[in-house]
Amino acid sequence: MLLSQPELSALTDPQASQRDSDDDRPRLECGVFGVHGIDDASAITVLGMHALQHRGEEACGIASCDGKRFYTEREHGLVGDVFTQPEVVARLKGRSAIGHTRYSTAGGAFIRNVQPMFADLDDGGIALAHNGNLTNFMHLRTKLVSEGSIFQSTSDSEVILHLIARSRSIKIIDRFMDALRHIEGGFALVALTRNMMIGARDPLGIRPLVIGKLGDSYVLASETCALDMIGATFVRDVEHGEVVQIDETGLTSFKPFGVKAARPCLFEYIYFARPDSIVNGKSIYDVRKRMGRQLAIEHPADADLVVPVPDSGVPAALGFAEQSGLPFELGIIRNHYVGRTFIQPTQGIRDLGVRKKHAPNRIVLEGKKVILIDDSIVRGTTSVKIVRMVRAAGAREVHLRSASPPIMWPDFYGIDMPDREKLLAANHTLEEMRQKLECDSLGFLSVDGLYKAMGHSGRDNANPQFTDHYFTGEYPTRLTDREVEAEGENAGAQLSLLANSY
Amino acid sequence: MLLSQPELSALTDPQASQRDSDDDRPRLECGVFGVHGIDDASAITVLGMHALQHRGEEACGIASCDGKRFYTEREHGLVGDVFTQPEVVARLKGRSAIGHTRYSTAGGAFIRNVQPMFADLDDGGIALAHNGNLTNFMHLRTKLVSEGSIFQSTSDSEVILHLIARSRSIKIIDRFMDALRHIEGGFALVALTRNMMIGARDPLGIRPLVIGKLGDSYVLASETCALDMIGATFVRDVEHGEVVQIDETGLTSFKPFGVKAARPCLFEYIYFARPDSIVNGKSIYDVRKRMGRQLAIEHPADADLVVPVPDSGVPAALGFAEQSGLPFELGIIRNHYVGRTFIQPTQGIRDLGVRKKHAPNRIVLEGKKVILIDDSIVRGTTSVKIVRMVRAAGAREVHLRSASPPIMWPDFYGIDMPDREKLLAANHTLEEMRQKLECDSLGFLSVDGLYKAMGHSGRDNANPQFTDHYFTGEYPTRLTDREVEAEGENAGAQLSLLANSY
Amino acid sequence: MLLSQPELSALTDPQASQRDSDDDRPRLECGVFGVHGIDDASAITVLGMHALQHRGEEACGIASCDGKRFYTEREHGLVGDVFTQPEVVARLKGRSAIGHTRYSTAGGAFIRNVQPMFADLDDGGIALAHNGNLTNFMHLRTKLVSEGSIFQSTSDSEVILHLIARSRSIKIIDRFMDALRHIEGGFALVALTRNMMIGARDPLGIRPLVIGKLGDSYVLASETCALDMIGATFVRDVEHGEVVQIDETGLTSFKPFGVKAARPCLFEYIYFARPDSIVNGKSIYDVRKRMGRQLAIEHPADADLVVPVPDSGVPAALGFAEQSGLPFELGIIRNHYVGRTFIQPTQGIRDLGVRKKHAPNRIVLEGKKVILIDDSIVRGTTSVKIVRMVRAAGAREVHLRSASPPIMWPDFYGIDMPDREKLLAANHTLEEMRQKLECDSLGFLSVDGLYKAMGHSGRDNANPQFTDHYFTGEYPTRLTDREVEAEGENAGAQLSLLANSY
Amino acid sequence: MLLSQPELSALTDPQASQRDSDDDRPRLECGVFGVHGIDDASAITVLGMHALQHRGEEACGIASCDGKRFYTEREHGLVGDVFTQPEVVARLKGRSAIGHTRYSTAGGAFIRNVQPMFADLDDGGIALAHNGNLTNFMHLRTKLVSEGSIFQSTSDSEVILHLIARSRSIKIIDRFMDALRHIEGGFALVALTRNMMIGARDPLGIRPLVIGKLGDSYVLASETCALDMIGATFVRDVEHGEVVQIDETGLTSFKPFGVKAARPCLFEYIYFARPDSIVNGKSIYDVRKRMGRQLAIEHPADADLVVPVPDSGVPAALGFAEQSGLPFELGIIRNHYVGRTFIQPTQGIRDLGVRKKHAPNRIVLEGKKVILIDDSIVRGTTSVKIVRMVRAAGAREVHLRSASPPIMWPDFYGIDMPDREKLLAANHTLEEMRQKLECDSLGFLSVDGLYKAMGHSGRDNANPQFTDHYFTGEYPTRLTDREVEAEGENAGAQLSLLANSY
Repeated sequence: MLLSQPELSALTDPQASQRDSDDDRPRLECGVFGVHGIDDASAITVLGMHALQHRGEEACGIASCDGKRFYTEREHGLVGDVFTQPEVVARLKGRSAIGHTRYSTAGGAFIRNVQPMFADLDDGGIALAHNGNLTNFMHLRTKLVSEGSIFQSTSDSEVILHLIARSRSIKIIDRFMDALRHIEGGFALVALTRNMMIGARDPLGIRPLVIGKLGDSYVLASETCALDMIGATFVRDVEHGEVVQIDETGLTSFKPFGVKAARPCLFEYIYFARPDSIVNGKSIYDVRKRMGRQLAIEHPADADLVVPVPDSGVPAALGFAEQSGLPFELGIIRNHYVGRTFIQPTQGIRDLGVRKKHAPNRIVLEGKKVILIDDSIVRGTTSVKIVRMVRAAGAREVHLRSASPPIMWPDFYGIDMPDREKLLAANHTLEEMRQKLECDSLGFLSVDGLYKAMGHSGRDNANPQFTDHYFTGEYPTRLTDREVEAEGENAGAQLSLLANSY
Repeated sequence: MLLSQPELSALTDPQASQRDSDDDRPRLECGVFGVHGIDDASAITVLGMHALQHRGEEACGIASCDGKRFYTEREHGLVGDVFTQPEVVARLKGRSAIGHTRYSTAGGAFIRNVQPMFADLDDGGIALAHNGNLTNFMHLRTKLVSEGSIFQSTSDSEVILHLIARSRSIKIIDRFMDALRHIEGGFALVALTRNMMIGARDPLGIRPLVIGKLGDSYVLASETCALDMIGATFVRDVEHGEVVQIDETGLTSFKPFGVKAARPCLFEYIYFARPDSIVNGKSIYDVRKRMGRQLAIEHPADADLVVPVPDSGVPAALGFAEQSGLPFELGIIRNHYVGRTFIQPTQGIRDLGVRKKHAPNRIVLEGKKVILIDDSIVRGTTSVKIVRMVRAAGAREVHLRSASPPIMWPDFYGIDMPDREKLLAANHTLEEMRQKLECDSLGFLSVDGLYKAMGHSGRDNANPQFTDHYFTGEYPTRLTDREVEAEGENAGAQLSLLANSY
Repeated sequence: MLLSQPELSALTDPQASQRDSDDDRPRLECGVFGVHGIDDASAITVLGMHALQHRGEEACGIASCDGKRFYTEREHGLVGDVFTQPEVVARLKGRSAIGHTRYSTAGGAFIRNVQPMFADLDDGGIALAHNGNLTNFMHLRTKLVSEGSIFQSTSDSEVILHLIARSRSIKIIDRFMDALRHIEGGFALVALTRNMMIGARDPLGIRPLVIGKLGDSYVLASETCALDMIGATFVRDVEHGEVVQIDETGLTSFKPFGVKAARPCLFEYIYFARPDSIVNGKSIYDVRKRMGRQLAIEHPADADLVVPVPDSGVPAALGFAEQSGLPFELGIIRNHYVGRTFIQPTQGIRDLGVRKKHAPNRIVLEGKKVILIDDSIVRGTTSVKIVRMVRAAGAREVHLRSASPPIMWPDFYGIDMPDREKLLAANHTLEEMRQKLECDSLGFLSVDGLYKAMGHSGRDNANPQFTDHYFTGEYPTRLTDREVEAEGENAGAQLSLLANSY
Repeated sequence: MLLSQPELSALTDPQASQRDSDDDRPRLECGVFGVHGIDDASAITVLGMHALQHRGEEACGIASCDGKRFYTEREHGLVGDVFTQPEVVARLKGRSAIGHTRYSTAGGAFIRNVQPMFADLDDGGIALAHNGNLTNFMHLRTKLVSEGSIFQSTSDSEVILHLIARSRSIKIIDRFMDALRHIEGGFALVALTRNMMIGARDPLGIRPLVIGKLGDSYVLASETCALDMIGATFVRDVEHGEVVQIDETGLTSFKPFGVKAARPCLFEYIYFARPDSIVNGKSIYDVRKRMGRQLAIEHPADADLVVPVPDSGVPAALGFAEQSGLPFELGIIRNHYVGRTFIQPTQGIRDLGVRKKHAPNRIVLEGKKVILIDDSIVRGTTSVKIVRMVRAAGAREVHLRSASPPIMWPDFYGIDMPDREKLLAANHTLEEMRQKLECDSLGFLSVDGLYKAMGHSGRDNANPQFTDHYFTGEYPTRLTDREVEAEGENAGAQLSLLANSY
């Protein structure tokens, strides 16, 4: 997927700044899916990707293989738009297929970055779909280019393909693992060769990947909700640091990295995963309700009702309401039609205070003391608009609660978050935040409270159970590109001299 | 809008049967919006239509006027897709604009049916947007064609334009009211001439229309949520049988029909209107919660929790939970990405039991006795799938409750419902329905219970307070085309000999 | 087709001025074709239209009928672009079809003007394709609108449909002839009803129309080259003022107008018709060679060689070379790839003297005294560029000859020519023209010489044998709209208040 | 460009067989153009490519550079379609640009093969446009893939980029020449780096390339007609085996290969180059007329007139007519609207004998003894149709003459010709050909006659002055891939496992 480093994305992504200004959500970059050895493999992949649409709304692609040749279709847009035509799916022949949904640049300019990516190797082809982000991508790319590799994209995923192509191992699974040994960061990979499907998860299991079965055929997916969509049964998570090879002989497991403890990403639980998914053995819906309950314990308020910021705040609000005994009401209505693109308003229209995504339910809010529950607060730009909207609809008091701790540090493992200087909590005290957000009181779930909701007694500071650097600043891996950049050695390095393309 | 008469739609609408088989919702055909005398009129109209998207997802259009000339843009697709390009909105010049969102046939074939429609009159032009359905449309069209009028569409709305064009009155507002005197049925109209905007509502107020103000400028909209979207203030409903003329001198009200009591359509309250809208003075959210409470009184169940069929069943489920004291849980997750079109599954895939729109939240349902709340049951095809899905996810018992009475009769006023032979309740006893829906118990809100939730002591059978023929068979107006058809006089009549078009 | 009146086209045609500035050709507006009672009627129509592409390059359309219903496809673009997809042709069902190629406004805005046009009548539908121009169109349109007709296009052809729709005659052929009796101007019409095809030509036969047979099926076409394309045999011209009805009983001829002498348009011979066509019994190629011979007699020159301005000047140049005994050489090469649209050059590029359509063949021109033969000179803007180009390529002398007389008056019968003030010959003496065109000598074929080339001893001034007003100012019909306009009565009249459309 | 080897093109080009069956022309694969150091470089390139459109009608592309970054636009279609939008050209920033027109596969599947191609090198980027064909492409590709290079296209041009990327030389011009030393075949290359433009021609000068100047800026182009188009002056041909480096210091010439005598391709003179071009110092128009004169000497006929098969046969026919004293007449009219794609006729339509490209001019042919002049005869499929058409139009006798010798052998240097088994002359005697072509007599220009028309006394069999293997079987270079294939070593090799792509 595309780098999140701002200096690179500014360079390569002319539309990086076109994100809807109303939208202050962190973005997870990508969902992956694969199915091996079954009729209608591509159609099943379309369905699986559909269930993973929330992990990447901007582009999607499928690669299939009929045992001899590979077929790909990649396009900007939602799965339901790109893969609706039967002839498109029909072109994706074969009984194995992998798919990818992703965030990033809209527009035709960067279709070359859309996954899955494909390479002809001397002993066959390989298609690759990647969720996550490599932290030594620039380092590897620079080295490969100096050795004569020609890159077609600005995606870090292509580095993996070049590493595979240059591996001197004989078997393709060994070439694949050779390549993985060079990369750092968070990744969940699904790959397709002429006769096998491969799944892999980074040594810490930062990004999720699960194994399912549909009849006798194996399925790989970012979340269990994709298994439910197609009626597949859940087998188990791919383990952290595990590589699985799926072919006609079944599933073979490899552990090519030294074994460490897992540290899955907490944001999957807080925001990204679908509420009906089970991630690393935990129900997202259940965990979120428990975050809400814990939040009610930590930050109660004297109020009339509990109102979620829909949709992501709903389970925590239900938990908060249950714990506090206050009524739960839909005081904010979400307009689900708000798409990725929308009319750029003139200043006159901006002044109208347009509410594209959230509308107040006046009858509920009028004259009430309201506890507003959101899953997290990033820059705070959306939060303040919602607080104002709720107050304008007649709420007497607004008590804002975040079901996760203050976000203080950026992510480099596949979550698109703003730079530190734009993170509200990184730059303000609690009271400053309360004033900026124009609420009567403000409360964040504590880090230990979050670990409690996750089923632990608290954070094990010596060996943290989860990836939580956005709250703590403790990054679980080296950040090679960051370090090089900090030393100024990389100054002026750029990803590609090709500014735009067909 | 397009007729719902099946013999006509089969003739004119090759895609009538392509509706997602997963989708058993009645459809409301159209939302209308207008704003007069303001900068950025078209951009404001885009925003207003966006808030009315739920009233018509298949096509949309805008007509604007700069005081001299008219400009239109009409296209299949969502507002957020059709009107995202700034240049499209820029082409819609002028300080007045009207907009329309509608259901019906996708595809290029029938763009000529997309509204607003326009006609050059000898003393200026007129653009018209229409929500509703005329019950004497075929009668009028046949007459007009025999007199030499050339129709370009198969829409009943074009009849109104021809009646206006042929009126012998001098002033355009009089020609407009002349035309209205010929038509029967349910309608909310917004029209634009070179120097005025006109709003009109049928004599019974079947379809809704509200008046708002944005600064000094008047706004017309199907629902108040469109006023909220743009920050306009609610003034009042257009009254039943009222025509309002809005020009530089302000608003002038006409009552061209004899005065009767209003009979607004109950389905606006049950399903169509957005929960944050106020229709004819009543909060939709509040009314729906009260339907849920009344339902709990009429049809309680011994169960563990209350689960809504999202999204439309949520308010009633909250009401039911409050009244019954049972916990409210999100046992079903709705995938909002499901669009209008989707991959046509092969039989193999169909057998997988794909869940495109609703997914079970296993953690909530497993081992539980569940009360499932839906807003209404039409054919029952969706309901049975949901009951099965909930049971497959581990629910021990499933008690299905409909927050509206049994639907027994089709609609002819702008709601797209199946024929009587396909309406579940019209053809089965309660027990038969329970067996077909595979639930442990089944209950419908009573007609009187519904009127109670609406704030009355019950239905006034002599002078019913609402349009409710789908429950009672009592149609509030003549059904001229139906009568003629029943007499066989219309046999072989067809809407247009032009099968397809550019 | 669209009016050529400048005040109207400026109003309704935003792209009227986008014609390639390199292009100084008059334009013929439209070719028509029809075939009745044969398999693959639409595919045959595509081929016939392809042969008539030179009569209209900007848009094309087909209407077909299967005896019950009608099907239309209309689009901007060349026949070879619009009708290449088999599925498009497959949608045009039935054993009868009519087609139309036309000039005019590119862009999506005016697809509503593209022909054939269609109307539902009370006893069936009718589709109409029209080549020519009505001179009382505004008069009729104004009257029809005042009586309540709603126009969908700004095309004069739609007037004919409304006249048919309002006719009180019983039989459709009578309604058709009723309508024709109201219109003035030049026209060749091909129409399709459910069981017949109709052809018609204006009383003077200004625009051409021929009858062919393909097996037992009748064909109608603007030119014989369309018959050759499909292997049909030429039967005869439709006579001036004749209406032919073609149905299962064969061909029936009507003469609904009083009989006058024919006056076909000379410009069909000079420029529009394809060289391999036979128009009104005369070979275009042969007539053009004879114009060249007559030109050599009237305006010889002391030169080394004869060079045509390709392609239209080639036959006359061959005739001139034969008569003069000078060698014929391709001193100018035409680039046939020059399309309708092309890059708008910056001033810097303009200064390069770009030659998009014509390139000099230096080897031929260098050091030579050249006679340059063009078919006609309209504004002279292209001619001067070509003279300069030939001179820049090394020609010692350039003697320009026009194979038609000086063009002094605009056309109102379907030829798109500039206004009088832009016609070179209307505003300059011969010597002024020579200087403006920068040639060493200049000669035009005389009017009598042209009539001689046409096989007459000269022009019969009392009863001219041809329509020749562009040379003589003698218009063969009333110009009602022009007269009304001249009287100022029409001031401010405009075609439509709808500025743009979907 | 794409390989012409049938086993490869069948594999990689699903649309190889979709060429219009009416079209029996050999195809030249590609025209190249470049301009360095001038304002509007991309717009000038569009114009230059427009003049080279005849060298490749199926796709086109431009790469530009602003001294820092590169910009590319590549698309299927004609230059006049792809590069008409000002915004497309505006995206191609910078004062240097190269362009490419090419034949081959329509459709979106192979846009990755459209040129110019681009590679990021470690010291900057390089864009490359290539006319010609490498005869050791498969050999090199196989080797590069085995070393870990990832190919994105199936084009032989990409091999050159990988060779450049892997060169260990320091300066980019040296890396470029390193790469050229590995390749065999015919090529004319134009490349763009951040601060220079490079031109190169193969050691024998098989493919043409000329140098021009526009003010102080250098231009490179396949033919001089591209210089004429933009008003540039001709400087000289790039010599065979020459590499020219053009930068701010001017033009530097390299001769990296051992010096041999030039052997330019004769087919450029016979058919490919535009008649107004000067190739290697000879006027195409003049050479073709002389071929016609020589043909009249070698194969006279007792006939009434000389008729060219337009457009390519016209100069030879003029020469033949001059030499023979017979009149030259346009007995066949070419329809220039025939595009690349066209309706697939049903059998019924096929039987009509449709004439899409050529139409008979009956008036000229009827009753006459006709000498028909074509530039060459490949499979003979078009020729026999034309002979039949001429006869059907009434010609008494048809004497067919080819202005080039019999074509006996396929080409591997960039001309798309059928396999040997489909070449008429390779498989039939003269009399068999006459019978197959259904003509009264048949004559081909002799090889020595062709060399005479080229200005020599005859072919120097020891050191042939031109590439003429299609007539003689003497290939001027090794055919490495052919040899390997013949040895069976390459059996099963295939270009790419990726069957289709986005």
